[in-house]
Amino acid sequence: MSINVLAICGSLRAKSTNRGLLRYAQAHAPDGMKIHQADLLEVPFYNADLAEKPAAVKQLLKQMAEADALIFGCPEYNYSLAPALKNALDWASREPDNHLLTGKPVAIMGAGGGMGTSRAQYHLRQVCVFLNLHPLNQPEVFANAFTGSFDTDGNLIDEKIQGMVRKQLDALAKWQQQLSR
Amino acid sequence: MSINVLAICGSLRAKSTNRGLLRYAQAHAPDGMKIHQADLLEVPFYNADLAEKPAAVKQLLKQMAEADALIFGCPEYNYSLAPALKNALDWASREPDNHLLTGKPVAIMGAGGGMGTSRAQYHLRQVCVFLNLHPLNQPEVFANAFTGSFDTDGNLIDEKIQGMVRKQLDALAKWQQQLSR
Amino acid sequence: MSINVLAICGSLRAKSTNRGLLRYAQAHAPDGMKIHQADLLEVPFYNADLAEKPAAVKQLLKQMAEADALIFGCPEYNYSLAPALKNALDWASREPDNHLLTGKPVAIMGAGGGMGTSRAQYHLRQVCVFLNLHPLNQPEVFANAFTGSFDTDGNLIDEKIQGMVRKQLDALAKWQQQLSR
Amino acid sequence: MSINVLAICGSLRAKSTNRGLLRYAQAHAPDGMKIHQADLLEVPFYNADLAEKPAAVKQLLKQMAEADALIFGCPEYNYSLAPALKNALDWASREPDNHLLTGKPVAIMGAGGGMGTSRAQYHLRQVCVFLNLHPLNQPEVFANAFTGSFDTDGNLIDEKIQGMVRKQLDALAKWQQQLSR
Repeated sequence: MSINVLAICGSLRAKSTNRGLLRYAQAHAPDGMKIHQADLLEVPFYNADLAEKPAAVKQLLKQMAEADALIFGCPEYNYSLAPALKNALDWASREPDNHLLTGKPVAIMGAGGGMGTSRAQYHLRQVCVFLNLHPLNQPEVFANAFTGSFDTDGNLIDEKIQGMVRKQLDALAKWQQQLSR
Repeated sequence: MSINVLAICGSLRAKSTNRGLLRYAQAHAPDGMKIHQADLLEVPFYNADLAEKPAAVKQLLKQMAEADALIFGCPEYNYSLAPALKNALDWASREPDNHLLTGKPVAIMGAGGGMGTSRAQYHLRQVCVFLNLHPLNQPEVFANAFTGSFDTDGNLIDEKIQGMVRKQLDALAKWQQQLSR
Repeated sequence: MSINVLAICGSLRAKSTNRGLLRYAQAHAPDGMKIHQADLLEVPFYNADLAEKPAAVKQLLKQMAEADALIFGCPEYNYSLAPALKNALDWASREPDNHLLTGKPVAIMGAGGGMGTSRAQYHLRQVCVFLNLHPLNQPEVFANAFTGSFDTDGNLIDEKIQGMVRKQLDALAKWQQQLSR
Repeated sequence: MSINVLAICGSLRAKSTNRGLLRYAQAHAPDGMKIHQADLLEVPFYNADLAEKPAAVKQLLKQMAEADALIFGCPEYNYSLAPALKNALDWASREPDNHLLTGKPVAIMGAGGGMGTSRAQYHLRQVCVFLNLHPLNQPEVFANAFTGSFDTDGNLIDEKIQGMVRKQLDALAKWQQQLSR
């Protein structure tokens, strides 16, 4: 059996540590799990006045629809969510019946200040209630981005956090199976 | 004495009911209060990789710096903030010392579903903690956008909500004076 | 197959509308579901200095351990949780390995002001993250207690809300099965 | 001029580290500030069925009424508030017109796990919105209770956190003056 996972990073910066978390996850996915990264750079703000969906949005929605599970790389900006991540979810929610997302399992990981983006992650969990996504409760992944856990390219180099990410991926695989049986 | 207020709407849609709330506020500002609306249509997602600030961002930051107080027109998308509003605040927070916003009084109003965007408004209040903004506690303005309170152009036509908006503006004027003396 | 559900009401008042929601749920549990109500009247504040667990606490913890699922009758006091409900969960969390609660499905319903206790319910959902409880996303039950939906004894008499409660119980039964297979 | 401050600790345990934070604050109040500690041990759960207010509640409400400002020692239990602290505020809110609390400045400090009770503190801030209390935005005091910052009696011995507490008290004095002028 194979699990197709879409990873979505809330930071648009190339050397983002949140992207680094997701890159590490991609490279260390457990057997049977395949992780892709969404590209949000060309996804505009949702605006009901837009005449049609831009290509980048169509691509994102297609990837969401095909995914068995989602991973959110969740930065914290000013004690709440990164707009690019929230906006990606808002686009999905405008599709008829929310059918792109409903019922899917989710893992949340984040890198930021001393609280490891926890304040943003709880806001994200509230968003998941409406979208009927099922975020893992445990383990939570809170990475401090300012204490040498990442190199200057945003690669995750801290072994303890690496272990947490792998543990979360294992939990996600199990959670996906529990929900889909 | 004159209070210069910047109103920022989280919805980009021309006929937005949240914009309608702010338009009503503009037209009914108490004596001595002048309300301007920010324009977020050309403000891109914050991205540390951007070489320089776009003109629309510079204009927004200038208006923020000049404002004595802020009003947020706060939609609720998927139980949390509209990305365009959050993003406007994220841009401001990147300025040195957060000097554009710190200490300013804030009023929050929102139009949406049956909860009147309350879920988003409490997330916005958490953002204000970090930015050292001082949101009014009372009155809160929660407008239901789906029960005839707005016309098809997004104009606020419900008298009860109109009264709440005016009451909030009076409270904002008083709060601004209390904080600035 | 039979589902044993423990219902916990955050209000201690005999004629509580939240208790009324739970009473209605008890009387209209779907086939195969049996709902009991916990009694919190003699459960004291958790205090690590207490030499031993009072009998009411032991009884509560035993009921929690035996339950296949939980229903929370969630009032809203001052925009957050009722202390009696939170305290019941705090007692449970002090048991070794949190084994009383971990992994159990949960339904949340509440009666209160115009927001139907939603502000408290999102705080409760955050508590569930730590306790590794799995609250239903949908349907949410938000009952206005001040518009004739309850009689003076706290009985739920509004047909629409009655329907929502029954719908939530059906969803809980399904969710419990999905999680336990 | 003299500022009369009531400190309320959410933990009932005698050797509580949150109580330790408040004790340190008492001993190091800035000139002109006098800090008293409330005693919640005999304050029962709020219950509308209680025929009359117990003596401990009357004493608490009297102290609240006389206070110019409040300090909350805010533990985190299961990612949210300590019931004893929330309950103290709930009692106050039942007084006519919320006159005991409205408009008062507040400082929040907490000792707990790695997040320093931040998750509980943001719930507490939401409670303050309804009660029309004005919590300080900055500095926030988040103390880790498990890394040697407190002795076995709960006394605060970490110099950095001691400095944060003193800084917060200075900010509270200034905030109280700003709000009361």
